[in-house]
Amino acid sequence: MTLTRVQPMPLLDVPPLPPLRVAMLGCGVVGSEVARLIIEQAEDLRARVGRPLELVGIAVRGSDRDRPGIDPELITTEAEELVGRDDIDLVIEVIGGIEPARSLILAALRHGASVVTANKALLAADGATLFEAAQQAGADLYFEAAVAGAIPIIRPLRESLVGDEITSVIGIVNGTTNYILDRMDTAGISFAEALAEAQALGYAEADPTADVEGFDAAAKAAILASLAFHTRVTGADVYREGITGITPADIASAHDIGCVVKLLAICQLSPPVLGAADRRVSVRVHPAMIPRSHPLAGVGDAYNAVFVESMSAGRLMFYGPGAGGSPTASAVLGDLVTVARNRLRGAVGPGESSYAARPVSEIGGVMTRYHLSLEVADRAGVLATIAQVFAEHDVSIETVRQNGRGAGAQLVIVTHHAQDAALSATVRALRRLDVVREVTSVMRVEGD
Amino acid sequence: MTLTRVQPMPLLDVPPLPPLRVAMLGCGVVGSEVARLIIEQAEDLRARVGRPLELVGIAVRGSDRDRPGIDPELITTEAEELVGRDDIDLVIEVIGGIEPARSLILAALRHGASVVTANKALLAADGATLFEAAQQAGADLYFEAAVAGAIPIIRPLRESLVGDEITSVIGIVNGTTNYILDRMDTAGISFAEALAEAQALGYAEADPTADVEGFDAAAKAAILASLAFHTRVTGADVYREGITGITPADIASAHDIGCVVKLLAICQLSPPVLGAADRRVSVRVHPAMIPRSHPLAGVGDAYNAVFVESMSAGRLMFYGPGAGGSPTASAVLGDLVTVARNRLRGAVGPGESSYAARPVSEIGGVMTRYHLSLEVADRAGVLATIAQVFAEHDVSIETVRQNGRGAGAQLVIVTHHAQDAALSATVRALRRLDVVREVTSVMRVEGD
Repeated sequence: MTLTRVQPMPLLDVPPLPPLRVAMLGCGVVGSEVARLIIEQAEDLRARVGRPLELVGIAVRGSDRDRPGIDPELITTEAEELVGRDDIDLVIEVIGGIEPARSLILAALRHGASVVTANKALLAADGATLFEAAQQAGADLYFEAAVAGAIPIIRPLRESLVGDEITSVIGIVNGTTNYILDRMDTAGISFAEALAEAQALGYAEADPTADVEGFDAAAKAAILASLAFHTRVTGADVYREGITGITPADIASAHDIGCVVKLLAICQLSPPVLGAADRRVSVRVHPAMIPRSHPLAGVGDAYNAVFVESMSAGRLMFYGPGAGGSPTASAVLGDLVTVARNRLRGAVGPGESSYAARPVSEIGGVMTRYHLSLEVADRAGVLATIAQVFAEHDVSIETVRQNGRGAGAQLVIVTHHAQDAALSATVRALRRLDVVREVTSVMRVEGD
Repeated sequence: MTLTRVQPMPLLDVPPLPPLRVAMLGCGVVGSEVARLIIEQAEDLRARVGRPLELVGIAVRGSDRDRPGIDPELITTEAEELVGRDDIDLVIEVIGGIEPARSLILAALRHGASVVTANKALLAADGATLFEAAQQAGADLYFEAAVAGAIPIIRPLRESLVGDEITSVIGIVNGTTNYILDRMDTAGISFAEALAEAQALGYAEADPTADVEGFDAAAKAAILASLAFHTRVTGADVYREGITGITPADIASAHDIGCVVKLLAICQLSPPVLGAADRRVSVRVHPAMIPRSHPLAGVGDAYNAVFVESMSAGRLMFYGPGAGGSPTASAVLGDLVTVARNRLRGAVGPGESSYAARPVSEIGGVMTRYHLSLEVADRAGVLATIAQVFAEHDVSIETVRQNGRGAGAQLVIVTHHAQDAALSATVRALRRLDVVREVTSVMRVEGD
């Protein structure tokens, strides 16, 4: 007999409760942190759930990597086999991407497990299929980690504000692009320089496309809009512009009008109009100028924030780290405890709510404001010519400022709200004018 | 036959689902807004719950007041009778105070109803009794509206962050005092003037004691600490100082060191110390100077915000309107939908979690920093005399600044972290020194 593996004896009159069995798909930055917490915080998790959580398997692509603190016997490359087991209560999916994540989640649900996922791309592309499978299985599908890392935003939208009418959700939901824009603003560097910095710090991938072109933010916008407006919105419904075209001139123009440039995910419900058809949903991701006084303007570095407006609650903001292994793991663990508790009570949390089924607007129909900087000929009648173009497109000008004279004369124009289609048509017409040498900056203005 | 009460015919093949029956206790500012929303948003609530919600009774003290939009037949003065009915599924309590609210909630739970309450005073005084009754009844007790109005903070602490270790919760949780301090800061007016303004605007009651003496914030702090640290904390455990003693000199002193004065509810878990006994919880409400760069410093007007730090999620902030009929009603309705859904699924949400049962520190044992302004005699050796007093109490000085000379010489001192007992003993000793003419401002400094 050896003393090295002695286990504490359970008290004889309190038989230990059987654990809930957890399988994890993926073991990258987030997954290894989740595994570490499940193992290290076992006592707290047991107390909070009411049962121990036992990690019984982790599916990875290659099993050869060293994973400190994780029992190598837990590691498998057979993901299908793992989710096909009938003794798994809870499955955590942190692989990301569409396949094989979707097939594995569907298999897990079919086998009766509840699922916690951080997979924004999959939810935005095909959430409906997952929600339907969860409902048929009577199992939970939770995904707090899919949007804005550790910031609790899914649960507040799905539950806390479910008795309210949300009219707008505006988020800074991509930390990489917020870091880049913040550095362009505060350090006066170019997009390329700021991107290189972000890559050196590990904030941006070697291929930064998903972040800087707004794909990541668009997926999150689709998820937020679906929850806020009880309407199915997919990534394909989201109008998207990235930040690769943002120049120091744009940043300087924003400064001049007391604004800062942010990549925003904007989800809006159109106001009710008497006699009109359904209220519409618009969902878009693009850089925009927002006033420095707006709560989102102060969100610096790689932080995320989501600003929600609703009929009764008014203006709310949620702020925190939007990415990273630890914050994302916190969100996954919170969901894990909740679905574990649900399972012990034979309950399920809220499923998809898409009853409102509102139509989604094209970008052309969205009401917004434009900021324009134009280099113009300095001659009599230039402003009249330009103003005429705005008038022809039914776009009303809020402010015009003229900087300099002679060859370098510059006009800075901010419009009132107008349909995006009219605004972009105005810009196209301005570019064709002889008196306009160059349109140096065009950007939407939001958050007034 | 009359046409005035024709009801729409249900489709013959879809028998209408029986409604969930809702009783409300209290019909003041919040209650009348809740009633209005239940009636006006009936279709949306039905879709979100999966069943209609039917308001079947509202208990009030005096039934003679006119309540526009509310069927007078719903109004009753017999609250006990209402909660004693066996056909009530959900009870909303918006009376406030300890009794009769407690007895009515307990009766409602005994009769099998789930309860949604906004009653911070009762939860802070005797939450344990309510949670126990809910658990015995297998019913829900939800209370999002009890802290920070519409800001979802209860659900994030209870559910989203339940897999994480929260180390600190610092909140601006009383809108009245935040308005007063904000006005003192921005308009340079006195406490009395700012209070009069707040009363004129309806932000402060005729008797403002509960707000300005910190009782309201202390109740909320007890609730937040209980949830964050899985430990039972009551209002009596909370160290409390109000803002009635805050002078324009204090505000100016804060300015001078780049700070702003806020009434903070501070809930902290002491760090783990090797070989020491349990980690301790401290909960306190008092005015404090916080750096202008701190996210809470920018929370102006009557807004609330709660700043949470945890091991994995990092630093999170939740911001929004902390009071008012509409925001509070939004929180109540969100809870109502959740407990209604739970009921339809035969489920209950999370109950009390107090397994950690950590000891609560006295204020004297809390680590904090002090800011002091002293009017001192301008003679050689004064600073040495004063520094000696700090040294005798084991309090280390971070910065000293001397303003002016001669009769009006002033010393501004900010300490390093030390035990509050040592800091307050230092202040008492300074007051006894001959060379100290007056201690003009003493305030804790937080949020570094």
